[in-house]
This record gives sequence, structure tokens and C-alpha cells, in this order.
Amino acid sequence: MASKYICMDIGGTKVLGAIIDEKNNIIYRVKKKTRAEKGVEIIEERIISVAQDLLKESGIEKSDIVAIGAGAPGVINEDKGEIIYAPNLPWKNYDIKKAIENKFGIPFFLGNDANIGMMGEWKYGAAVKKKNVVGIFVGTGVGGGLVINNKLFSGPRYLAGELGHMVLNPEGPYCNCGQRGCLEAYSGKVSMTKEIKNQIQRGRSTILKDLIDMEEGVIRSKPLKMAVDQKDSLAIEVVDKAVYYLAAGAGSLINIFNPDMVVIGGGVIESLGDYIMPQLKRYIKRFTLPDILEGTEIVPSVLKDDAILFGSLALIKEKQLK
Amino acid sequence: MASKYICMDIGGTKVLGAIIDEKNNIIYRVKKKTRAEKGVEIIEERIISVAQDLLKESGIEKSDIVAIGAGAPGVINEDKGEIIYAPNLPWKNYDIKKAIENKFGIPFFLGNDANIGMMGEWKYGAAVKKKNVVGIFVGTGVGGGLVINNKLFSGPRYLAGELGHMVLNPEGPYCNCGQRGCLEAYSGKVSMTKEIKNQIQRGRSTILKDLIDMEEGVIRSKPLKMAVDQKDSLAIEVVDKAVYYLAAGAGSLINIFNPDMVVIGGGVIESLGDYIMPQLKRYIKRFTLPDILEGTEIVPSVLKDDAILFGSLALIKEKQLK
Repeated sequence: MASKYICMDIGGTKVLGAIIDEKNNIIYRVKKKTRAEKGVEIIEERIISVAQDLLKESGIEKSDIVAIGAGAPGVINEDKGEIIYAPNLPWKNYDIKKAIENKFGIPFFLGNDANIGMMGEWKYGAAVKKKNVVGIFVGTGVGGGLVINNKLFSGPRYLAGELGHMVLNPEGPYCNCGQRGCLEAYSGKVSMTKEIKNQIQRGRSTILKDLIDMEEGVIRSKPLKMAVDQKDSLAIEVVDKAVYYLAAGAGSLINIFNPDMVVIGGGVIESLGDYIMPQLKRYIKRFTLPDILEGTEIVPSVLKDDAILFGSLALIKEKQLK
Repeated sequence: MASKYICMDIGGTKVLGAIIDEKNNIIYRVKKKTRAEKGVEIIEERIISVAQDLLKESGIEKSDIVAIGAGAPGVINEDKGEIIYAPNLPWKNYDIKKAIENKFGIPFFLGNDANIGMMGEWKYGAAVKKKNVVGIFVGTGVGGGLVINNKLFSGPRYLAGELGHMVLNPEGPYCNCGQRGCLEAYSGKVSMTKEIKNQIQRGRSTILKDLIDMEEGVIRSKPLKMAVDQKDSLAIEVVDKAVYYLAAGAGSLINIFNPDMVVIGGGVIESLGDYIMPQLKRYIKRFTLPDILEGTEIVPSVLKDDAILFGSLALIKEKQLK
């Protein structure tokens, strides 16, 4: 009887795939870069090729796979497995579930990446058995996920949880979404990179100059951590500012939801969590009502880069129970 | 058989009481001012005296009353009818339900005023049968209420929905709560009053000078409406700024919740709604993700000053069904 699961994290810069066994252990992995020069790959093609690679390279039979699950960017109807809207793709209401199931003959489930990351932390990571959880994922952008009354909340039209687009200053910097002063426009790596490059161009002395490629799109988290570790003043400034606004966003969300837990995840936290978390907890007191913090734990992601993989597993199990 | 309900709105400046019949009509009302010189009245005393006045003045027998319900400021456990914390009162975890029920021999239910106002609009007002609703109530301060998945969401510790304390600018004006740049610090009447008084003291010409008492705590909504109607430039500026930040807050909440409806209520909207609502809808597009507004109606309160009275009725009916 089939006992294993194919789980995927379809990101903008990389695709992770894993086979997870019945004991929730990852027994095989693949990782692929999404090469920018190849243009926008279609999500469907990526899912098919990663699944094929996993099966081929691991030697595991397709008949041993219970289901395939994935998290991807975009507005996704998790109940139907339908892509309502995906950034840079021409699709509207595309039934990807049917397409993948026809291809493999295995059940397929898909959800929004941030929501699926939240499910991973909730079912297998930092927030197990918590009834109300806010998840904030800081990477290239800032994503969010919400668990309300023991249920993932993605809203009536699967658009809820866009926590990166809370407005933290109506006169603030422009965000990619067209709003001003979004959390993402302060705390995401795109905005941090912009500030670092501006400062370097103005002649600011920083070791980041040797660590980053000025032509490169977005700074990676590891060189940023190296620079912070070496007490580079620009790196520290940029990270502190990002954390300050992250605290403002998280604080607002605590005032709105009064959650049992706030989980902070994403690539930036994975690399810089030890530096960021204590700083965040100090700042957050500025932005929370008296006493409201008492019932709210603020913790880093436990699953880190695997949050969406385990979230895909959680999605499969939830949907198959229905 | 008892068929009528005593419902109350215990506010900081006034107390409203009503008897509501089996057809949801208000058949008798009392309104009392809370006189500041008498100091902080205890919530329990107010509830008792308003209930006694209603019965005495209407001539309705106590035996004809099914239950008493009320909304009041503070952190209130709606399930137990317990006051967890009330501003300016020395109580912690006070079992007011038991106290009132012992006094009258009638079931008593109590909830937080903004949450109860949200319930009123949801069960009898603007948001009937909507599954996900955000309520923002603009008065002296700014309160909020949330309906999520067909249920009032007050959080695991009855602290959720503090929408007036979302941070809209970490460097913004100080709020009464100690944070900076809260929605309430921009859009509540306390902050509007502060700005009007500052401008008058600086010699700014405005008809508000004759309409407000400089010693008075907070401007009332009616003179503000008169001044706006007469195109007083200061009044228009102050209201526009409040609406701009209200739009930033409401827009963020739409990005977070993707709700079916946003209800805007409170005294300011009751008086100035015709001016504010179109303005709000224009501004809100700045603060919402592309397309997300499509599924969200933005409407003014229908019950207006009676929202908490009808919310108390809704609370009674919900709790008695259990």
C-alpha cells in the first residue's frame, strides 16, 4: 500500500522537492534553481519535472506515493486545487489539480506558499496545537498566514493573510504592490537590498560591498548575516530598521488577533534569527497594548526552509481526511 | 411568558437603555449622561439603575423580561459574563453576571462594547448573513469588532479586535494607549479635537471656534458636521486627515482578512457619514491590493447609535440558544 508523499515548495528563485515517509521523515530531496534567463517557468511544468526527478533519482515507485502536495505563490483555492491568479502568469481559474492528477494518476493538492508554510509550522513545527497563530515569513518579500479558531484562515476568496501588505506608513516608501509603506517595503529583502545599494553608491564604507554583487537582484541572507556578525554598521542599520518595522507589523497583528503565538519565519530569520528575535521582542513592546503580550509567545520558525514541504504534507492529510 | 429584553449601552459619556419586544422593536428607551464630576461610576451600579428606571418608567413587569444584556468598555469574557479588566476600575476577574442575576433574578449577559456593536450590525444591521466582517467604530476613540467564519472573534483571551490600535506610523503622534501612530491617534475624536484646538490657539480662523467649548473635553460630532457643511477649511482638513488614516487602517484590514464586508460605524459616521463614506472609498484604493476590493462591500452602520442595544439582544439570543 502506498505510504509516501511527494511535497514541494515552488518558489520564485528555487524549487524544493521531497519525498516524506509515513513517519514524517524526509527520505529524499531535490533542489532546483529557477534560472531567470529561462523566463517565467509555468508552475505546472515545475511540479511535473520535480515529481519526475524525485521518483527517478530516489528509485521509489509511483505506486508507493499516496499523493502530491505543493505550495506556490499566487491566489490559490486550496479546497478545489485551482489557481485563481498567479503573478506573471496568464492564468485565471486554472484547474491545475486536474492537470497534475491526469498526468500522474495520483491525488494532487495545492495551496498558497505562505498559507502552506503556516500549516507546516502549525502541524509539525513551532505552533503545534496552538488555536490562534499569526505567521510572518520574511524573505524576498513578506508573506503571512493565519490560523484562527484551529483552522487555516485564507478568507472567503483565498486572498486573506497578506500580512506583508499592512500599511505601516501611508507616506512610506513605495511597495512592489503599488501601495506605500507596506511592511514588505520595509522588512523584505528587496527593500533591504535597495537601501544597501543606495548607501554603497553614495560611497558608504561597508564590507557588504565585497559580499554582494551589485548586479544581482536581491541580497542573500547569508552574506547579510556575515556582515552583521562582523558588526558592519550599514548591515546592522539595515537589519535593525527591518526588524523595527517587523515589530510594528507584528505588534499591530497582536492587537488585532490577540493570538496564542506569533511565528516568525522565512530565509532572513533562518540566517539571522539569533540576532533578530531578541531585538524583535524588545521593539514589539512599543507596538502592543498593555498586558496583551502576556498570552502571546513570539517564536522563530522551527521547520525553517522545510516549512512549505511539511505544510504540503499537512495540506494532503487535511484534504484526504475530508 | 416573558417576551421582552432589557438591552444597554454603557458608554463613557452616556448610558442608553431600551426594552425590546419579541418583534425586535424598541418599545421604551432611557438615556442618561455620565456626569464627570461624579467620578467613575461603577458599571454594575449603572446597569442596575438603568434597568430599574426602564421597568419603573415603562410600567413593564420584571416577570415579562427574558434577560438583560449590555455592552461596556473593557476586557470582558462574553462566555462567562466576567469583567477581566475595565478601564479606571479596580476590578480583576469580577463576576458581574452573578451580581446582576442575584439582584434581579433574571439572566444577564455582558460583552465588550465594540464587539457587541459588531454583533448588532451582524445580526440586525448592515452585515446580516455576511460570513466575514470587519467593524470599525469611530467615536471618541476607535473600536473594532471581527466576525470570522460566521462567529464573533474576540480572541482566546477576549482581547482581540483592538483595531483602533493598529500602528499606522511608528513615528506618528502618541496615542492614549502609549503607542505611537495608532489609527485612534489619527481618526478618533480625541485626536481631531486636539488638532482643532491647536489650530485655534495658533489663531486659525474657523467657525469651529464658536461651535466648540475650548474647555470641553472632546468635540461632539454635530458641530463638526455643521462646520464641514459650511465648508469650513479647518473642519474639512481635520476630517479629511482622519478619513485618510481610517482608509489606511481599513485597507490594511482588507489585505489581512479579505472580508465580505467592512462596516464603518460610531458617532462620527452617524453625523458625517454622507461626507465621509465616498471620501473613504476613494482613499481606500490606495491601501488595498489589486482586485482584493472586488469582493468586499464597504458600508456605513445601519443601526447607528442603537448598534450596541441590538448587539446586546444578539448576545442574549446567542447565549440562550446554547
